[in-house]
Amino acid sequence: MSDAVSAGGKRVVLAYSGGLDTACILKTLIQQGHEVVAYVANVGQLEDFDDIAARARQTGASQVFVEDLQAEFVTDFIFPAIAGNAVYENRYLLGTALARPVIAKRQVEVARRVGATAVAHGATGKGNDQVRFELAFAALAPDLEVISPWKDPEFLARFQGRRDLLAFAAEHDIPVEATAEKPYSSDENLMHRSYEAGMLEDPDAEPPKDMFKLTRALEDTPDTPDRIVVRFKDAVPVEVENLGDGTTVSDPVGVVGYLNDLGGAHGIGRIDIVENRFVGIKSRGVYETPGGTVLHFALRDLEGIAMDREVRRLRDMLSPRFAEIIYNGFWFSPEMDFVEAAFEQSSALIDGEVRLKLFRGSCIVEGRSSPSSLYDQDLSSMDVAGGYDQEDARGFIRVNALRLTAHRLIVDHSEE
Amino acid sequence: MSDAVSAGGKRVVLAYSGGLDTACILKTLIQQGHEVVAYVANVGQLEDFDDIAARARQTGASQVFVEDLQAEFVTDFIFPAIAGNAVYENRYLLGTALARPVIAKRQVEVARRVGATAVAHGATGKGNDQVRFELAFAALAPDLEVISPWKDPEFLARFQGRRDLLAFAAEHDIPVEATAEKPYSSDENLMHRSYEAGMLEDPDAEPPKDMFKLTRALEDTPDTPDRIVVRFKDAVPVEVENLGDGTTVSDPVGVVGYLNDLGGAHGIGRIDIVENRFVGIKSRGVYETPGGTVLHFALRDLEGIAMDREVRRLRDMLSPRFAEIIYNGFWFSPEMDFVEAAFEQSSALIDGEVRLKLFRGSCIVEGRSSPSSLYDQDLSSMDVAGGYDQEDARGFIRVNALRLTAHRLIVDHSEE
Amino acid sequence: MSDAVSAGGKRVVLAYSGGLDTACILKTLIQQGHEVVAYVANVGQLEDFDDIAARARQTGASQVFVEDLQAEFVTDFIFPAIAGNAVYENRYLLGTALARPVIAKRQVEVARRVGATAVAHGATGKGNDQVRFELAFAALAPDLEVISPWKDPEFLARFQGRRDLLAFAAEHDIPVEATAEKPYSSDENLMHRSYEAGMLEDPDAEPPKDMFKLTRALEDTPDTPDRIVVRFKDAVPVEVENLGDGTTVSDPVGVVGYLNDLGGAHGIGRIDIVENRFVGIKSRGVYETPGGTVLHFALRDLEGIAMDREVRRLRDMLSPRFAEIIYNGFWFSPEMDFVEAAFEQSSALIDGEVRLKLFRGSCIVEGRSSPSSLYDQDLSSMDVAGGYDQEDARGFIRVNALRLTAHRLIVDHSEE
Amino acid sequence: MSDAVSAGGKRVVLAYSGGLDTACILKTLIQQGHEVVAYVANVGQLEDFDDIAARARQTGASQVFVEDLQAEFVTDFIFPAIAGNAVYENRYLLGTALARPVIAKRQVEVARRVGATAVAHGATGKGNDQVRFELAFAALAPDLEVISPWKDPEFLARFQGRRDLLAFAAEHDIPVEATAEKPYSSDENLMHRSYEAGMLEDPDAEPPKDMFKLTRALEDTPDTPDRIVVRFKDAVPVEVENLGDGTTVSDPVGVVGYLNDLGGAHGIGRIDIVENRFVGIKSRGVYETPGGTVLHFALRDLEGIAMDREVRRLRDMLSPRFAEIIYNGFWFSPEMDFVEAAFEQSSALIDGEVRLKLFRGSCIVEGRSSPSSLYDQDLSSMDVAGGYDQEDARGFIRVNALRLTAHRLIVDHSEE
Repeated sequence: MSDAVSAGGKRVVLAYSGGLDTACILKTLIQQGHEVVAYVANVGQLEDFDDIAARARQTGASQVFVEDLQAEFVTDFIFPAIAGNAVYENRYLLGTALARPVIAKRQVEVARRVGATAVAHGATGKGNDQVRFELAFAALAPDLEVISPWKDPEFLARFQGRRDLLAFAAEHDIPVEATAEKPYSSDENLMHRSYEAGMLEDPDAEPPKDMFKLTRALEDTPDTPDRIVVRFKDAVPVEVENLGDGTTVSDPVGVVGYLNDLGGAHGIGRIDIVENRFVGIKSRGVYETPGGTVLHFALRDLEGIAMDREVRRLRDMLSPRFAEIIYNGFWFSPEMDFVEAAFEQSSALIDGEVRLKLFRGSCIVEGRSSPSSLYDQDLSSMDVAGGYDQEDARGFIRVNALRLTAHRLIVDHSEE
Repeated sequence: MSDAVSAGGKRVVLAYSGGLDTACILKTLIQQGHEVVAYVANVGQLEDFDDIAARARQTGASQVFVEDLQAEFVTDFIFPAIAGNAVYENRYLLGTALARPVIAKRQVEVARRVGATAVAHGATGKGNDQVRFELAFAALAPDLEVISPWKDPEFLARFQGRRDLLAFAAEHDIPVEATAEKPYSSDENLMHRSYEAGMLEDPDAEPPKDMFKLTRALEDTPDTPDRIVVRFKDAVPVEVENLGDGTTVSDPVGVVGYLNDLGGAHGIGRIDIVENRFVGIKSRGVYETPGGTVLHFALRDLEGIAMDREVRRLRDMLSPRFAEIIYNGFWFSPEMDFVEAAFEQSSALIDGEVRLKLFRGSCIVEGRSSPSSLYDQDLSSMDVAGGYDQEDARGFIRVNALRLTAHRLIVDHSEE
Repeated sequence: MSDAVSAGGKRVVLAYSGGLDTACILKTLIQQGHEVVAYVANVGQLEDFDDIAARARQTGASQVFVEDLQAEFVTDFIFPAIAGNAVYENRYLLGTALARPVIAKRQVEVARRVGATAVAHGATGKGNDQVRFELAFAALAPDLEVISPWKDPEFLARFQGRRDLLAFAAEHDIPVEATAEKPYSSDENLMHRSYEAGMLEDPDAEPPKDMFKLTRALEDTPDTPDRIVVRFKDAVPVEVENLGDGTTVSDPVGVVGYLNDLGGAHGIGRIDIVENRFVGIKSRGVYETPGGTVLHFALRDLEGIAMDREVRRLRDMLSPRFAEIIYNGFWFSPEMDFVEAAFEQSSALIDGEVRLKLFRGSCIVEGRSSPSSLYDQDLSSMDVAGGYDQEDARGFIRVNALRLTAHRLIVDHSEE
Repeated sequence: MSDAVSAGGKRVVLAYSGGLDTACILKTLIQQGHEVVAYVANVGQLEDFDDIAARARQTGASQVFVEDLQAEFVTDFIFPAIAGNAVYENRYLLGTALARPVIAKRQVEVARRVGATAVAHGATGKGNDQVRFELAFAALAPDLEVISPWKDPEFLARFQGRRDLLAFAAEHDIPVEATAEKPYSSDENLMHRSYEAGMLEDPDAEPPKDMFKLTRALEDTPDTPDRIVVRFKDAVPVEVENLGDGTTVSDPVGVVGYLNDLGGAHGIGRIDIVENRFVGIKSRGVYETPGGTVLHFALRDLEGIAMDREVRRLRDMLSPRFAEIIYNGFWFSPEMDFVEAAFEQSSALIDGEVRLKLFRGSCIVEGRSSPSSLYDQDLSSMDVAGGYDQEDARGFIRVNALRLTAHRLIVDHSEE
């Protein structure tokens, strides 16, 4: 038992990013008498994790865990989201929302490992992330206390703006790279990079051109397209092949990373939207999701030949709810188990490949094929009957028309 | 009464396009003893309508009606479809499906005008259009007989391929522009141009580059973007302004046409999909919808600030069904009345403007504003409280977590 | 300005029922320096409203408003709920949930009339009613302060149980009829009577036989049925006729009251369920809704002949959400406006009458007819063709089978 | 090879009920030169199967298969339908629709066993059953030819009414029990007994009192209730216990049969509706489903304590579609596989028991309990806090109110 804990404090596992906020939180928790274990989640953001760990120790963390979650993130979160057509409000591919549950899950595991009784996070009190963290904690480890400084009146009173945090960091020799002005905040992982707040809070203001990190502007993309094949097995991407240079990638993290690079170079996957947060606020967000966009596009196309029409209707009836479950932070929930069970079924036999041309911001399909294709060239042909009897259509239409005719007669009658 | 009718034939209004099929059908109907009134619908396709009318007369039509449906098409079909987020199977903006009901509606009106007892169309027995025409007839005029040669065994036996049609035309001096080989079939109107059949029946084959008429390839789009503002009132586009040259268009047909030109020049709105026909067949379709794509994009963006979250959820729950109703040919139906009544409500107060950059196949939003915006910059701000009490979030999350914790306890218990 | 208000207190309109809770709340608000206007809503509960008003004055209310909301309650809340098939979790007809918005609406009106700056209610902090009241206030009058003592820590500390309230009432000479023990709590209005809490909190315990007030036990219902006709116009009940004694009722409040009496006598409309509250808690509720049950039953039956199949599908797709909107307290919301616009459409032409036998807990339909019936006796007849060509069914089935056959071939292939 | 087959006929497996229609069909098929194998499905109807088999042989069947499908029917069709809350148009428990796929499935198996190349059924061309049979055949054995005499123009011309069938039977010494007049047609199986057609075609006419076979009229039910416990494991009924006499039944067929007897004696499970057939016709149906009604009621009640709220919402969003899939004959379909996968998940841990009083047409719940109950008596209690902090409700409500307030401001603004 640490001194802090034996003196009445708690052992707290803090989700520590190395940024200004969580650095100050780490310090204040220690000041409140807790023992703080810093937990750094590697979900694919570009960071010097050794440096982050060193700074955590320097600020007083009793232990530091740097956890590589990339493989789990891709396999258990990104790929199922793409398979289930998770698109929030018709646009957002949920990059941030998908990373939160995998981070929270490991945080609980670390808490168990070190025998902590509390978990802490630095998400703000107005955003979605606090909800995603805390609902995941409630679902996975309801016994753990949740410390959320940005909803704590004392903390809020003490730190009323960025300047207060910087002053506190300076005062306590907390090593941070932050500067006084920050034009927007951003979040990065293997799936995407997001931007919000600051100057982006005006929905009528264009984002600055130099903001984007993962995708090139359409003005700057190459004049030569790249052609790739994406191969799926049961709706899971199993291989990407570059038809130009023959590069082949098949490990899940590699697939996403490779498509991020290639898609990003061609300017694919930028969106700029005003979205509805779970906490009832409208919020403006800008997102770069190059690889995810390519995979979504390719899989939807493959579903065209390989998924039954009525299964697609049912899947797409659940997809907006699926996206909402993810966005709102209910990844670990019985409703998610329900939806996932259905989607596992609709994903079966969605096998095959899609050939894509990546060029100037667009994915252009150049062909698709599937060993489990439901597409029947003869049946659909305008030139051959292919097993279809045109006369059947007459009965089909006439039976479908019965209701309409009955309705017409009533409407005519009622208008007399 | 015409001689044909007095001799026992019927007065038939034929939807006549001037193409090979309907030209031959016109003739065969006359041969069967009917009086045929040719009805040519102008839904914005690029055609010489005088020439079409002349050919119809030459082939034996007793009367020819060339009807300009463009304004009605835009106002009563295209704009409501865009307002209701009608996207079939996540991709297709329904250009052909939207034109069919307006054509059928006027065809019934022409039949009433000329006292016809039958209507005829040349849509094939495997496609969606036959259903759309015939369901519209059933809904609007169940007393009219429907003549559908491509489901008639005799006609099918006589015309087993394109060559039979050409031979028949030659034999009877029917003026057609068709040639023996046709690599694909296409359909054009103000909303889009579609391509299917022929060489496109192989879903793994890329469409020929010279096929496209409304949109440039991304290789050929200008290096300079165009910037426009699209203004909406109650979810209806009321004005488009080109911020470069100051051009302003506000009449509905003009708005669509202008955005077709501008969007098409920038390569916006091409898709290539395998879709599910109502008659149970999978079919490959390629579509160019430049203006419709711009309008869809702009309106969805405006909804971000102007539409309530839960209204959007409900609207988007009905949108796939709305698209299916349109695609399957049930425009004139009680279920459409139901959906439209709801959408009229969700469209109210969706006012404002969206600034777009059209460039290299993409619509890029550069700003949006609305007099009825639900977006509250202070409320969403990360820097100011803006009337939001962060502590409220604690209660919000804890109440939302109750179910998850209860579920966890049961699952843990059941796994013991 | 009252002395209290001039001294810094507020003018508060309290929803006052005359029960123990709101009587004590009235007093404590006065003790806190507020001027309290008592507002008593008559939604059809059996009470001596003069006596309630007198007690409010005696306890210190500066003014008392007794408002008869019955007609508005029936016309604007009960009938639309029945028309929209509002059934929460397949069982509950929402009697309490429907009364809350009409009470809150008038409370806001009273607040405007008297120039109050706050509204108060006595609903508990665990229940649904607090949410319904406060969301209605937020929707109708966001400027009014909401005082909710049962979520106030001080109040909660002071009144930890029923005994504390009784002691407080005794101490301050507050006239209440309450006794120390209360086996359950109940709520009554024109739509229903509800029971929860107390001994009902054990879901495995049967409710006491003497609890029920509106419906007789099946053991005690008459041995002779009553036969009635319920007549609807646009899905609204416009007349009930007793076929036995010729009684005819057509005013809305009278229709519900009469069916409560008659249905209750025959033991119709009791349910006992465990339901899911909006605040995440499961709760056991017992309800008596005799008249509402009869009306629901009759209207659903009439829809059988008068509502189009696909409209019914769409309506029933929205109905669970409609019930949830009502249950959760979002009556005054944009999503409700959306749903209501749709339901107004589906209710049109649902005209006609249903003959019912009320007997031993059941509604038994003995016949239905409609001037706008879509039912076609000849068409449905097994004996005459009636305009239906059986051969059409062949094509209908074969077209529907295409997908299934294609799927079978793939499944067989994949299992090889 | 039989003589018929060697002479060019087919070996046909006919679903033979022993009734007038299928008896005549058997004969006409033989007359057409086919070898007919009679297949009699025992789905629990009360019949003398030996006698039916003898008559089939006498009429010329080359072989007769009497197949006992009861266990499969209950386990694979009835129980899953109840678990998934399959209720068509809010009322019909789908007894007939559930029997068709199990009958068709075995018919295909029999066809395979005897090497038949065709299957035949006697369902009419206006009804749902033809669709259910033929879609099942298409899904299970697309290679088999389907012979459906009631859609065959020659057969229809020959047999224009019941009298023609009776005359044909008399002429060919076909042993039938039918009489010239039949006031309605009925269908019976373990799940229910249905009545339609004939005098029931007038929706305003009451069914004759002596029509009902499985349920007593409420006038004739016992004055003493029966009390039972129904026990479920994963939403499947595993035991019924009569608390009066201690009878315990646990085999699936026995459970349904026992509840049919007991529920029927108490007059439970009669409905009389106008429903929408898949073929676009409205049709009046009367059904008796005593056991199914008891099981539906009990399971829905158990879900109250054992099913998560949001899972229930999702399940109930799919249930109407599930019922439609069953009703329309798509039991063997990819969409059914999708729905079933989801429902398997929602059924997990729906364990426990419901105590019911069966009395005078009603199921009255007298208590329910579950080892996996999500109901928390302390949490829901109005008397104890039970881990719920009432102050949390404040934040919960305020966050939920944000949208409503924003909307109010816009509406007020737009109305100025």
